[in-house]
Amino acid sequence: MSEARLIYLPLGGAGEIGMNCYVYGYGPAEDERLIVVDLGVAFPDMDSSPGVDLIFADVSWLEARKDRIEAIFITHAHEDHVGAVGHLYERLGGVPIYARAFTAEIARRKMQEHGYSDTTVKTVGKWPDTVTAGPFTVGFVPVSHSIPESSGLVIDSKGGRVLHTGDFKIDVNPGVGEPFDHDLWRSLGKDGVTALVCDSTNVFSKAEGRSESTVGPEIEKFLQTASGMVAATTFASNISRVRTIAQAAERAGRSVCLLGRSMRRMVEVATEVGILDDFPGTISPDDVPGMPRENVLLLVTGSQGERRAASAQLANGKYMGIKMKEGDTFLFSSKTIPGNERGVIHIMNQFSELGVDVVDDSDGLYHVSGHANRPDLDVMRDLVKPQTLIPMHGEHRHLREHVKISEAAGVQGVLAVNGMMIDLSGNQPTVAEYIETGRTYLDGSVKIGQLDGIVRDRLRMARNGHVIVTLIIDEDGDPLGDPWCELMGLPETGRNNVPLVDVLEEDLSQFLNRANDKTIADDSKLEKELRTIARKSAQAEIGKKPEVTVVISRLA
Amino acid sequence: MSEARLIYLPLGGAGEIGMNCYVYGYGPAEDERLIVVDLGVAFPDMDSSPGVDLIFADVSWLEARKDRIEAIFITHAHEDHVGAVGHLYERLGGVPIYARAFTAEIARRKMQEHGYSDTTVKTVGKWPDTVTAGPFTVGFVPVSHSIPESSGLVIDSKGGRVLHTGDFKIDVNPGVGEPFDHDLWRSLGKDGVTALVCDSTNVFSKAEGRSESTVGPEIEKFLQTASGMVAATTFASNISRVRTIAQAAERAGRSVCLLGRSMRRMVEVATEVGILDDFPGTISPDDVPGMPRENVLLLVTGSQGERRAASAQLANGKYMGIKMKEGDTFLFSSKTIPGNERGVIHIMNQFSELGVDVVDDSDGLYHVSGHANRPDLDVMRDLVKPQTLIPMHGEHRHLREHVKISEAAGVQGVLAVNGMMIDLSGNQPTVAEYIETGRTYLDGSVKIGQLDGIVRDRLRMARNGHVIVTLIIDEDGDPLGDPWCELMGLPETGRNNVPLVDVLEEDLSQFLNRANDKTIADDSKLEKELRTIARKSAQAEIGKKPEVTVVISRLA
Repeated sequence: MSEARLIYLPLGGAGEIGMNCYVYGYGPAEDERLIVVDLGVAFPDMDSSPGVDLIFADVSWLEARKDRIEAIFITHAHEDHVGAVGHLYERLGGVPIYARAFTAEIARRKMQEHGYSDTTVKTVGKWPDTVTAGPFTVGFVPVSHSIPESSGLVIDSKGGRVLHTGDFKIDVNPGVGEPFDHDLWRSLGKDGVTALVCDSTNVFSKAEGRSESTVGPEIEKFLQTASGMVAATTFASNISRVRTIAQAAERAGRSVCLLGRSMRRMVEVATEVGILDDFPGTISPDDVPGMPRENVLLLVTGSQGERRAASAQLANGKYMGIKMKEGDTFLFSSKTIPGNERGVIHIMNQFSELGVDVVDDSDGLYHVSGHANRPDLDVMRDLVKPQTLIPMHGEHRHLREHVKISEAAGVQGVLAVNGMMIDLSGNQPTVAEYIETGRTYLDGSVKIGQLDGIVRDRLRMARNGHVIVTLIIDEDGDPLGDPWCELMGLPETGRNNVPLVDVLEEDLSQFLNRANDKTIADDSKLEKELRTIARKSAQAEIGKKPEVTVVISRLA
Repeated sequence: MSEARLIYLPLGGAGEIGMNCYVYGYGPAEDERLIVVDLGVAFPDMDSSPGVDLIFADVSWLEARKDRIEAIFITHAHEDHVGAVGHLYERLGGVPIYARAFTAEIARRKMQEHGYSDTTVKTVGKWPDTVTAGPFTVGFVPVSHSIPESSGLVIDSKGGRVLHTGDFKIDVNPGVGEPFDHDLWRSLGKDGVTALVCDSTNVFSKAEGRSESTVGPEIEKFLQTASGMVAATTFASNISRVRTIAQAAERAGRSVCLLGRSMRRMVEVATEVGILDDFPGTISPDDVPGMPRENVLLLVTGSQGERRAASAQLANGKYMGIKMKEGDTFLFSSKTIPGNERGVIHIMNQFSELGVDVVDDSDGLYHVSGHANRPDLDVMRDLVKPQTLIPMHGEHRHLREHVKISEAAGVQGVLAVNGMMIDLSGNQPTVAEYIETGRTYLDGSVKIGQLDGIVRDRLRMARNGHVIVTLIIDEDGDPLGDPWCELMGLPETGRNNVPLVDVLEEDLSQFLNRANDKTIADDSKLEKELRTIARKSAQAEIGKKPEVTVVISRLA
């Protein structure tokens, strides 16, 4: 039996921002006992995944080894860390899910939606409390981030100590939740750390990160001077910001109305688990129309321009009976995530059409990031003094830059992207194996693979349109009448100003008149020929080659 | 006959950034003689216009009045101002196109591609030269921008003077092209200006704009310290920047290689018209592999991450025999246009995978904007002292903000979006009429309307997949065999783990067995029923309702 080793294997989140899923293992090679850290989702877009509802990491490797999985640990309740628990729970063998109270409550609601009992998720206290999971002892160490009770993990085993930061920033005055505790993190490192597996999101941000506490006074000033109704948006899960805005509103003489399902749910959960005890009383949407506009603050979902969120519906004219108008203001207390610009700009322009002023964070006053900037990453590494730094939670460029700054500071770095299994035993980490990874798409109620060809076909239809050719072959093997064409997503007429469908049918008929019996008798050959002709004919007529489906019916 | 009036009508560019097309008219109401300023394109995206090649303003209104059009004036050679000349020339009656030399040369090449002669485009000297077009006298006044020979237009008629700025910035040291001339612009306004129709792109940028001349020294410093091969990208049309980079490279001991068709073409045109006489000699791509890497600078197209541009191909591994590798650097001397983030980030990560360092403009050193910032817009308005300010070249929020700052400074502003015809006669501009406007898509070789439903169908297929149901009805009016289904863009199996196609065919067959003769005899009823069943059946099986095309063949 081979010697025990400690392995690290990212399946999602290392080479992208989103769908976090990291695996640690300890034991004899290929027989390690495993734990999973985070089970998140990523979000689809029209460019690459039209029609898809959610994206998960492909966990086939784990599923094939589910008898070796001990537990799942969730660092915090953001969707890219917890969003897939209900979807993937069974495939991972139904092992216990551990999290701190707020995260656990969010995870439980997700598990319930999938019909699982509350006991699937276990609430864990913060460090020095720990959970034993096979060869691992795991503790949740509070960090500051943009959601309550975010945690780094202390992952101890005979293979050494790994510190997995989770998403974090260094904020000693974060509003809701524990301040970042330099001494605690220093103490975690004092007996040696095999690896610091570290957030890399903001590695390109060169200034020291700003505290959440700097936002409140600016928002209060802003609300004091705003005249009409004000709506403010931020991520609902950013409870600290939600509280900051609500308290600023209260001081500015404005009643707070929560709009959007997740806004209400997050405040509810935070109150339930006892981390939000000083939230101002709120008013119902029904009360808003009867109040003086300058006494109202709407706290709304949709900071990323999501089409169905409260912000988008207000921009579109009306939400739950509330209309915004000239003299009102809409505040983005948020940053636009790259890729969401079009949606955000769209609602900004819709508000402009309504006469509503829009204020965003371009002056840097009304939002701070939840991730550690480059100097803060240096602080973390200096506190912990790891033998090796492994960047995670970043695109390739972030991971690479993080390795560079670490090595410049004299700490060896390992650039491990999804699928690279790192053996952390010994002094020098090595790549143990390359695992096939990818993305699983939730499409309606079905899970499909990124490479199944389904989405590729959708993209092709979207770019090229779709022609359906139907042909009936009679009992004697002769075409019965002419082939028919149906078009979808294609212009009705082309170059010759006659219907495209007529041109296609004419060209297909001509081919059939010339075709020999052998071609007509061979389904796949006939199909191929008809497709080629339809595409050529369309190319000549409208300048593009459509997707073509050929349906041949043979009368028996 | 009614009194003559002066009208302004934006058909594109007022309410969006792109596809600029502005109309001015003078004469009796509804019989004005017209001129067109700019004929630009916008670019499609997967979210709203999959498969589309280019987007133009809908010029139906102009086409219906083409006998009243006198001329087309092009302010500068950016695609959003000149890109549609070849496509729309005939629809606008084949009137002369006027532009300054560089712009005219670009326009001529576009006209040639559409088979038109060089004489369709007339070269005009700069102000005080003018062109007479019906009741209008039009002059081209040099402005600084990010392409050579950009011009504002002086549009004089008996209705008064309109100054149409075109895209501009205030730069007294722009490198290539004329410095902005404060005195000249002041003199244009001294006898009164009816309206200043003004660029609004950067109205939200609060700092004074920076000169192109500040970029060169920074790029030179950068090139002096870079070790391996360097590739730099910017818009090829930004001749001044292209020259700045090339000259900095020369001083840093690097030979310049131009990569990308538009990069070579733009340098060629600029040299041809005599505005670029001090460009360093260039080397051919074939020479690059044989040279020491630190002696090479590649000047490449694709600053916006365009998939087929030189930058994307280099990021993908190789372009024209040239490979970038560890130790090399890629410089974005450009800003990412909102909406293009995903493409740009994608190539950044690809370069990271190759080990190539990427430097962008996040430090504000290697790029300056070509548009006037807010303080510069104030300067322009103060120089010209118009009776009315009409913002253009902006989304709704830009136009609205521009009106606000103008009115705050005591100059009345008119927020005119596409389709609002403004009567500029008299002291107070009024809305004369609302014209139906929109977008025309170039799709392959066909022009289709934004609202024709073609693109809507493509988006639906992309989101929902496509099911084709075929059914043969025999001579007696009975179904011949079972209906067939073909799927495209849909999962093969769903909830019951049997092929989706089997489930659909089974459900459709069952319906047909129950259906009465009347239903089966009625094509449209039958089609509707089959579609409904296929959608319901898919919804139950895979959790989504596909698009369904039903093809019924009746044997006669």
